[in-house]
Amino acid sequence: MSDQIVPGVDAPCPIGRAAETIGDRWMLLILRHATAGVTRFDDFRQQLGIADNILSNRLGRLVQSGLLVKAAYRDERRTRHEYRLTTAGADLLPVLHALAAWGQQHTRPSGPDQPMRVIHSVCGQDMPIGEFCPHCDRVAARDEIRWLRPWRSGSAEPLAEPVT
Amino acid sequence: MSDQIVPGVDAPCPIGRAAETIGDRWMLLILRHATAGVTRFDDFRQQLGIADNILSNRLGRLVQSGLLVKAAYRDERRTRHEYRLTTAGADLLPVLHALAAWGQQHTRPSGPDQPMRVIHSVCGQDMPIGEFCPHCDRVAARDEIRWLRPWRSGSAEPLAEPVT
Repeated sequence: MSDQIVPGVDAPCPIGRAAETIGDRWMLLILRHATAGVTRFDDFRQQLGIADNILSNRLGRLVQSGLLVKAAYRDERRTRHEYRLTTAGADLLPVLHALAAWGQQHTRPSGPDQPMRVIHSVCGQDMPIGEFCPHCDRVAARDEIRWLRPWRSGSAEPLAEPVT
Repeated sequence: MSDQIVPGVDAPCPIGRAAETIGDRWMLLILRHATAGVTRFDDFRQQLGIADNILSNRLGRLVQSGLLVKAAYRDERRTRHEYRLTTAGADLLPVLHALAAWGQQHTRPSGPDQPMRVIHSVCGQDMPIGEFCPHCDRVAARDEIRWLRPWRSGSAEPLAEPVT
């Protein structure tokens, strides 16, 4: 948690300002992937099945809002860019968890339902989707939270840490 | 909380299904207003400053998803319609609270900041934005939660109850 302030939004209501910033299906899906550790344009594109121009637009807006930072890195052949969460982007975790909990309760996949699980690495127990571990009776730190998404993998994965 | 299932979305990930359903700035703003008790087309329009066709479209999609129900009522002159939250719509409260908490921390209005407050009517104490009352050490029921939005009014207002 930090006091990083997102520019360019204005309304007296904090829900309104948040909705102005991330009230978009693709932005939410990109932020979910960034939280799960995706950083590269090609990986976002492939995993989201999103058109190049829409992905560029949404990544640009997320960088402009300061939720992601764009940084150059060099692979074997050339300079590429990656996108990493800032603290303001990482602090959206409770929004993603609230969406997940609601989605789990009020929507169903067409195939067999393999529920997303949130695991507290300290005790190894499942948490209700969110940040509170009832087994430990405390809020779990970000680096203690694992997402188990059985439709992708059988292992519980740590969340991306924000760039500080 | 109920098991009302929203139709027409499909993805293995519950965050994805939720983002498909409500990943839209206007829908989030309409759901906020509905939660605060707005029910009439004209009141949504006036309070949101939204164009008629966009408002119609978004209300229609929210009705189609089963988050709002549309019902006829008769005023002095003619039959009108109102839009009320279903249980699936009301269960989005934690999403709205998570957006509010993030918006309060990471965005600022251009004018003086008059923070939104969430009050537990049972003990009369402020809660951190969300559903948990630390003073009572329990989750507050929906009908015990009041929103105080000082830019609108000095009084703490109850939330709309879902149509059952």
